[in-house]
Amino acid sequence: MTIAQPLITLLTDFGLQDEYVGVMKGVILSIQPNAQIVDICHDIPPQNVLAAASMIEAAYGYFPAGSIHVLVIDPGVGTQRRLIAVQAEGHTFLAPDNGLLTHILKKKPLEDIRLIDQREWYLPHVSNTFHGRDIFAPVAAHLANGRPFQLIGPAIDPSSCILLNGLRTRYSEDGTIHGTILYVDRFGNLVTNVTQEDIDRLSASGDNLIIRIGGHQIEGLQRSYGFVPKESPLALIGSRGRLEIAICGGNAAQKLGVALAAAVTIQRKKQD
Amino acid sequence: MTIAQPLITLLTDFGLQDEYVGVMKGVILSIQPNAQIVDICHDIPPQNVLAAASMIEAAYGYFPAGSIHVLVIDPGVGTQRRLIAVQAEGHTFLAPDNGLLTHILKKKPLEDIRLIDQREWYLPHVSNTFHGRDIFAPVAAHLANGRPFQLIGPAIDPSSCILLNGLRTRYSEDGTIHGTILYVDRFGNLVTNVTQEDIDRLSASGDNLIIRIGGHQIEGLQRSYGFVPKESPLALIGSRGRLEIAICGGNAAQKLGVALAAAVTIQRKKQD
Amino acid sequence: MTIAQPLITLLTDFGLQDEYVGVMKGVILSIQPNAQIVDICHDIPPQNVLAAASMIEAAYGYFPAGSIHVLVIDPGVGTQRRLIAVQAEGHTFLAPDNGLLTHILKKKPLEDIRLIDQREWYLPHVSNTFHGRDIFAPVAAHLANGRPFQLIGPAIDPSSCILLNGLRTRYSEDGTIHGTILYVDRFGNLVTNVTQEDIDRLSASGDNLIIRIGGHQIEGLQRSYGFVPKESPLALIGSRGRLEIAICGGNAAQKLGVALAAAVTIQRKKQD
Repeated sequence: MTIAQPLITLLTDFGLQDEYVGVMKGVILSIQPNAQIVDICHDIPPQNVLAAASMIEAAYGYFPAGSIHVLVIDPGVGTQRRLIAVQAEGHTFLAPDNGLLTHILKKKPLEDIRLIDQREWYLPHVSNTFHGRDIFAPVAAHLANGRPFQLIGPAIDPSSCILLNGLRTRYSEDGTIHGTILYVDRFGNLVTNVTQEDIDRLSASGDNLIIRIGGHQIEGLQRSYGFVPKESPLALIGSRGRLEIAICGGNAAQKLGVALAAAVTIQRKKQD
Repeated sequence: MTIAQPLITLLTDFGLQDEYVGVMKGVILSIQPNAQIVDICHDIPPQNVLAAASMIEAAYGYFPAGSIHVLVIDPGVGTQRRLIAVQAEGHTFLAPDNGLLTHILKKKPLEDIRLIDQREWYLPHVSNTFHGRDIFAPVAAHLANGRPFQLIGPAIDPSSCILLNGLRTRYSEDGTIHGTILYVDRFGNLVTNVTQEDIDRLSASGDNLIIRIGGHQIEGLQRSYGFVPKESPLALIGSRGRLEIAICGGNAAQKLGVALAAAVTIQRKKQD
Repeated sequence: MTIAQPLITLLTDFGLQDEYVGVMKGVILSIQPNAQIVDICHDIPPQNVLAAASMIEAAYGYFPAGSIHVLVIDPGVGTQRRLIAVQAEGHTFLAPDNGLLTHILKKKPLEDIRLIDQREWYLPHVSNTFHGRDIFAPVAAHLANGRPFQLIGPAIDPSSCILLNGLRTRYSEDGTIHGTILYVDRFGNLVTNVTQEDIDRLSASGDNLIIRIGGHQIEGLQRSYGFVPKESPLALIGSRGRLEIAICGGNAAQKLGVALAAAVTIQRKKQD
């Protein structure tokens, strides 16, 4: 038989060395004991809103419609920043209004967007420093219990919300793509903001491209990591659907000496 | 429809780089397949009973009544130390008798306290080095299955259990509070053992206080991190309900050069 | 009441700093919303097939029959390496054919072994770099939904699969056991490939043994860590059922200067 187990995901910069994530789960399960809670990531570098905004965009589509995604990277906790709830593409997102939902807020159409202001759903005592536990967790659990989204607070204008800059690539007049490293993963792979669409504008096959990063130059795109010799750098469209710079069997960030926010350019090889 | 999913939490110093935590979950789910298992933390510094004792006290109240909390920080595993089971405030706690339950054992009334000695619930082979897997996990799962707590073993006298010292603040004659850093979280926030009640004895408003730590001096309490300029130190009542020293947007442990067990004093500012 | 919650375990080298593990769970729960998903470990050193092969052998037996174990340490992702599915001892294992299932493939009898080739179960778009998400997660979820194992792909010959070498101990003519460190755990305990059976061949009691490792010499086996003075080295049969070298209250890897793949010898003490 099947039962309803509403799905709640968590994406925070809390790490796992403290009890913070576990306590959020305790609050959720106190209200909705059958929730399926999935950790997307808790190792976002402290207060790095940009990394988390990229990550939720890469991840949410792999969860079933009806999922509730809770994002708590919240350097402004306890100050007057707003908390927002957004519904798009059948998913619900809860986050501080600090740019975390930049990608989500650009979806068309947005199904609903509201201020989180339903104090009856909060924990009885709301601390000044841990709204993940005292506001986000119980609000998510009440939504998971089937309470109407409209009760969460007043509708707001999406254009009033904070968006991050610098997530898009730029083009120079000769067609060169100017991108940036948005993410370095565990393997040291350098994930850029350059999309398949960007690449397609330059080259349908990907063969005749030159990628430059940190003084290094890579020619062409590979299908996967194992298509070049060990320790060789390569470029490919990674699992996030973005241009990625990697080292076969190695760590590109270390070996190429490249870090978050580094510049990358892609241009067409000149025909001799 | 709702189903019964009994909740078991885990708090250990096992880390996540080995299979130890996963194996404990396998044992639990072999006995009670519908258990909700929540990790409170597995990154307690190896064998640091003090950090774990503070953490369970900070965390358990956010879980629903009926939860079973399993604590395995167990430097004496395989020696003759006792394993104990305590019921208090509707929660059940299983741990070695080594001070982990210091805060819990001070609850009044304790509902029940027993030696863990029900060998029929253990795994058939009990190793000498991994009682988390061989004893704690199956005992928790049998309790989650609704087996009576009284079957776990003989009742014991709470006064026979080991308690940790040094968890309380001291006062000097002039009213100065002498506290200590019990915990450093991921953000470098320094969590003390100084409670709101301690603070209230000195100053109802918290305004006219001087906090001294590691040669640094901080005046007054803030509501949250964002109420002082970036990179400035501040003191506040943190999410554990304890006095906490932090740096706005930074790492207080690093910037102030302060570590676990450091001394902190709080006194009233002299009126000039 | 009880419900069926099929159990899926995950063992990868993805770490927890990226969204990769969370996304695999999203895919599984999109197909089988009631799955119980347990992390065995995600901190396998990148691309260390040997460490993961040892770990699944140590772990799977603690999960209930019917569990589905997904292993993704996959340096060859996107190249022509095969993906395999094995049933043994009532458990199902999914992994690349790169040695990860070395221990499992030696079980007798193997119940079934097949190539993973059921494209209808894959995600609609299969990337070249993340088969954990696009192939393994949905295939595991379809199996958890009760789809027949035989649909997963054609049966293959186990002898065609890749096995790791060096997992077994050797004996010299005088009976000395030559082993190796297969695993270093969080506590710095050095887990060897030497089994209880190896030890029994030398000494029924374990008393009259000399263990040599990294220039150090340890006499006899202890029951557990706490049976020698603090900071003293000791040898014992650890929780994996293998000979383990440890330091009471300390880190053996650091203190003895010994790392993964180091040699260890065990011989009988000469009677003077």
